[in-house]
Amino acid sequence: MSARALRVAIAGLGTVGGGTLAVLTRNAEVIARRAGRPVQVVAIADLDTERVKASLPAGSTIEVYSDAMAMLAQAKPDVVVELIGGTGFAQALMKAAIDQKVHVVTANKALLAKHGNELFAQAQAQGVTIRYEAAVAGGIPIIKALREGLTANRIESVVGIINGTTNFILSTMRDKGQAFAEVLAEAQRLGYAEADPTFDVEGHDAGHKLSLMAAIAFGMPVRFDQVSLEGITALQATDITYAEKLGYRIKLLGIARRREHGVELRVHPTLVPARHLLANVEGAMNAVLVTGDAVGQTLYTGKGAGAEPTASAVIADLVDLARASSAASALEVPALAFQAESLEALPVLPMADAVGGHYLRLRVKDQPGVLADITRQLADHHISIDAFIQQEPAAGSGQTDVVLITHPCEERALRLASGRLAQLPSVLAEPVSLRVEFLA
Amino acid sequence: MSARALRVAIAGLGTVGGGTLAVLTRNAEVIARRAGRPVQVVAIADLDTERVKASLPAGSTIEVYSDAMAMLAQAKPDVVVELIGGTGFAQALMKAAIDQKVHVVTANKALLAKHGNELFAQAQAQGVTIRYEAAVAGGIPIIKALREGLTANRIESVVGIINGTTNFILSTMRDKGQAFAEVLAEAQRLGYAEADPTFDVEGHDAGHKLSLMAAIAFGMPVRFDQVSLEGITALQATDITYAEKLGYRIKLLGIARRREHGVELRVHPTLVPARHLLANVEGAMNAVLVTGDAVGQTLYTGKGAGAEPTASAVIADLVDLARASSAASALEVPALAFQAESLEALPVLPMADAVGGHYLRLRVKDQPGVLADITRQLADHHISIDAFIQQEPAAGSGQTDVVLITHPCEERALRLASGRLAQLPSVLAEPVSLRVEFLA
Repeated sequence: MSARALRVAIAGLGTVGGGTLAVLTRNAEVIARRAGRPVQVVAIADLDTERVKASLPAGSTIEVYSDAMAMLAQAKPDVVVELIGGTGFAQALMKAAIDQKVHVVTANKALLAKHGNELFAQAQAQGVTIRYEAAVAGGIPIIKALREGLTANRIESVVGIINGTTNFILSTMRDKGQAFAEVLAEAQRLGYAEADPTFDVEGHDAGHKLSLMAAIAFGMPVRFDQVSLEGITALQATDITYAEKLGYRIKLLGIARRREHGVELRVHPTLVPARHLLANVEGAMNAVLVTGDAVGQTLYTGKGAGAEPTASAVIADLVDLARASSAASALEVPALAFQAESLEALPVLPMADAVGGHYLRLRVKDQPGVLADITRQLADHHISIDAFIQQEPAAGSGQTDVVLITHPCEERALRLASGRLAQLPSVLAEPVSLRVEFLA
Repeated sequence: MSARALRVAIAGLGTVGGGTLAVLTRNAEVIARRAGRPVQVVAIADLDTERVKASLPAGSTIEVYSDAMAMLAQAKPDVVVELIGGTGFAQALMKAAIDQKVHVVTANKALLAKHGNELFAQAQAQGVTIRYEAAVAGGIPIIKALREGLTANRIESVVGIINGTTNFILSTMRDKGQAFAEVLAEAQRLGYAEADPTFDVEGHDAGHKLSLMAAIAFGMPVRFDQVSLEGITALQATDITYAEKLGYRIKLLGIARRREHGVELRVHPTLVPARHLLANVEGAMNAVLVTGDAVGQTLYTGKGAGAEPTASAVIADLVDLARASSAASALEVPALAFQAESLEALPVLPMADAVGGHYLRLRVKDQPGVLADITRQLADHHISIDAFIQQEPAAGSGQTDVVLITHPCEERALRLASGRLAQLPSVLAEPVSLRVEFLA
């Protein structure tokens, strides 16, 4: 263990940065025994240098900078851990690190989703790596599983609960029967949701992570710009209840699926069979279900966020670098799993081409022949029904709900059929539809 | 993709060997795009050369040998895939390969559990590796997760459903309410259990896998000889039913837990909370729950056996080798996760020291004061009760069952208390006890 330490500079000592420093300090011995040499934080950059200095133990030799660029130039790190977030300064810092042939470890999914293709190419040209295990699903080593653990497979799909905030909200809506807005307010009060929750509840964050996983699963560039995004803000408690009665739970899923002529990339609330393990991943947990042609279904679950779970992933990347016996060996695993020159620009299919089951809720007049009208419309669009329930009408209302689950069909067909259903005289309101994944 | 192919020799073309050849052939293009060069089977050794030759496509250039030693000497492989199994010839072959500086990939958990320490040391001395992702939990990349994905953590425990045969038997016993012997016979008829099922149902196979996972989780040598083994042959259907009523399911778990003065290494039928994901891993699926101090609980599930799931793991090891840019880089990840010189001979604690909950079923006289007698005995041994049920006595029998779950205690205390309970006049038969893991 006399080998030179891996010199680590941390840019941004917020939640994850603080967790990284804490775990590297607490577990220094066990980490060095695994890595073959110490993994040592030599410098920290943060705008609030006073807070950082106050948090370090007396006698600490860690250099503290207010300017991450100055740290990069002066601290001579082997690797910069970028935990600033966002796509502005973080991107400039990453480029500067790469230019100076310094490796980068990051948790910044937004930056990689938007600019990963250029950054990965730039890093490869400079002979350094950008590692990003922490960018997806917290401490679950899903990037490693996809890039290295499942390399035998033609990956068919990656389906994930990859945003803890929305999963917590959905779990609570179900458990307490509350409306979205009410649960969101409570989650904000408890600190489980941001003051501006748009990024989470509209599916952007899940879309960032999905675009990275799809790239490494299928050997394609990162295509966040082509992910179809639909959040949970419009989800109604009544549909959670009906889904439950039909044997399903509603989760915000990120879905990447290989199809014959391209790939589906989509994030939306989805009904999944209640008995599937994925349906039982509750609260702030994350889970990723990967289907490969050889391995079949494998599922990975754990905490998707938080200081130390994310630090666990950051440090795994650092240990990989510490173990590398040469400059070349740090580059052995391609950034996007496939050799850069062999990435394929697979077409991303429009949502209308997506294939899956559908949940339809129809407010109808309580009169004979309604169900026949509905089923005929669906049959005319070659959509068959897997299950349905018809609610007893409230006394004297003359109205009721018909709720059904279709067998898989193209979304195009479902939209056409739904449009026709809306025009039936017996259908009293715009049909509500949600997507279903059978996960078989 | 013009780089030289990785030359692979397969020893033993049985189920997994056949799967490996099939997947390497079918997915050759996608594997080469990930590995940066082709992964090519150049030779196969199998006693039944005729069968092998008949299975190869016309014009195949793969050399077929009846003698794996001859293959090793003549085929000039970069790596031998050892799929012969057992500890006799397989061990000799592995040693010969290492002597000739040929890497080894194996699915042979029995051999590594018994002779891994010497074999890993020998391989390191020769500058080659023995890779064994396929030895544990089929296609689930759990070895990679433990050796590389969770390196930041002080691992606290590894708890797994790691034998598909017994999990299938337990799932079926529960679903159909059948006795062990009956379900075993059916499993044998269906090919889910071996003609001689001892290895699986007595926990040996799970013990092999557990000893490997414990070594890499805790940084200790492989200690299969010190794993406490208890199988499922004595498990009664009535206890599965009572466990269900108390909110638990019974699984054969392999448990490795770090304690202050050593480690627990044990395989036994275990009650787990029915709502925990682990309890819902059914049939032939495997699952491993890893708890680390930073990451918290992470769970990995998938098919634990079968031709192609196991081949998926074999090929992941081959791709790791194909990606290695130098002889040194193939050795970067230590065989047992920790650098060999830093392995600690952690003491393995005797079962009496194990801490956990306990399930107790007592056949008692249906008379006043019985429950008071039982609870007093437990209290005298400082064992507190988490839950209990008392069955209505069958009419006229004058007997009933008292079934209870204790809070965690040392097994030593439970055994003493159980011995005293057996001597109570109101207790009519030897108490039945099972271990409980709360997995909190």
